[in-house]
Amino acid sequence: MNQNEQKQHAAQVALARIQDHMTVGLGTGSTAAYFIKALSKRVHEEDWQLTTVATSKESAELARSLGLRVQDIDDVAAIDVTVDGADEVDPNLDGIKGGGAALLFEKVVALRSKKNIWLVDESKLSPRLGSFLLPIEVIEFGAQQVYRTLVHMNLHPRFRMKNEEERRYTDSGHQIIDVDLSQQNDLPALARQLKAITGVVEHGLFLGICDEVIIGSQPIKTLTRPREA
Amino acid sequence: MNQNEQKQHAAQVALARIQDHMTVGLGTGSTAAYFIKALSKRVHEEDWQLTTVATSKESAELARSLGLRVQDIDDVAAIDVTVDGADEVDPNLDGIKGGGAALLFEKVVALRSKKNIWLVDESKLSPRLGSFLLPIEVIEFGAQQVYRTLVHMNLHPRFRMKNEEERRYTDSGHQIIDVDLSQQNDLPALARQLKAITGVVEHGLFLGICDEVIIGSQPIKTLTRPREA
Repeated sequence: MNQNEQKQHAAQVALARIQDHMTVGLGTGSTAAYFIKALSKRVHEEDWQLTTVATSKESAELARSLGLRVQDIDDVAAIDVTVDGADEVDPNLDGIKGGGAALLFEKVVALRSKKNIWLVDESKLSPRLGSFLLPIEVIEFGAQQVYRTLVHMNLHPRFRMKNEEERRYTDSGHQIIDVDLSQQNDLPALARQLKAITGVVEHGLFLGICDEVIIGSQPIKTLTRPREA
Repeated sequence: MNQNEQKQHAAQVALARIQDHMTVGLGTGSTAAYFIKALSKRVHEEDWQLTTVATSKESAELARSLGLRVQDIDDVAAIDVTVDGADEVDPNLDGIKGGGAALLFEKVVALRSKKNIWLVDESKLSPRLGSFLLPIEVIEFGAQQVYRTLVHMNLHPRFRMKNEEERRYTDSGHQIIDVDLSQQNDLPALARQLKAITGVVEHGLFLGICDEVIIGSQPIKTLTRPREA
């Protein structure tokens, strides 16, 4: 199977975790889009009463266009399960997200979800995080100051660009700085350190958040972690 | 002297700390406005070549309207001294800021300033921080989720309102939640804990940042702290 078939396959398996009346978090990106399409089909076929919460304008628009009910995160009591992609996952189910610049809303939704499922193809698995650049979401005001701090932290930062001249902005009006983790050994400490920087809104290290990884291989493989109390 | 005369008096004393060719950070609020006016007068009288960096649209507009040169924080090499107000200051020169909802830009500028001076009237001095509510700047997406977390932390949160119906937005498009510190004993730990919350951008606890407090009493009183290495 090619990567797209793997993603589609994983989306079908994730769908088996969803039941009628659930509130479902919808991730962002190409893998999440496969899941949103599969979910919409099921909802219509089975006439499910189901509510979704989106992690980006893009996913909200896709879900609405497919007839799914999309609510604001602040208008739902709880999120039962969120299905999202990931850019890199290690054997502990820790990961990097934010390639699609939606990491902030994705993390807000993930942290309020009873269960988080990530759909990936085999290319996303990694024995140690750091093949993928880590996105850091920063406020526009003084972004260059945060950049300098990241240089001093030996993280080789670079601004995410929309084109050669303009920086990329997120759905919240923030900017993204991508950094290189390859020389970092203590990721939990780095995660705390990054979030503590004035000007940093959030980063794409998702540690201890994912409960199940579905790998769209043939046969399907899953990795699970018991949720800590 | 009434409070306004105290603020004006303190602004004059702060002006004595400013020299030609400096880059000066401009705070936000009524006290900072007195300083901006006094600074502009001096710059014109002495024909100073001086650059300023503003901590809000409001202060940038005031400074420009008075003929001061205002640059973006990312376009200056360093900030020599920043003069700002504060909502509450304790004997260690720790303080609460953000009554004017400009805490985020104020903190970015303060942390990049070689010296920080706060101008206050005597009513802002407090043996222990907590008479003033602490403002927390949060992203709009999932703001209610952060609110719930703050309830669980026993911080008695309330959203800052623009009017009875609408929430107040900051210059960055974020919202403000004010919390009650009166039952908190370990403010450095609380500061770290608040900044670590996903959805929180920054908070108004300014710990270890201020170098000199000028109290506009008659006679003027100042509190200074040697800067840590």
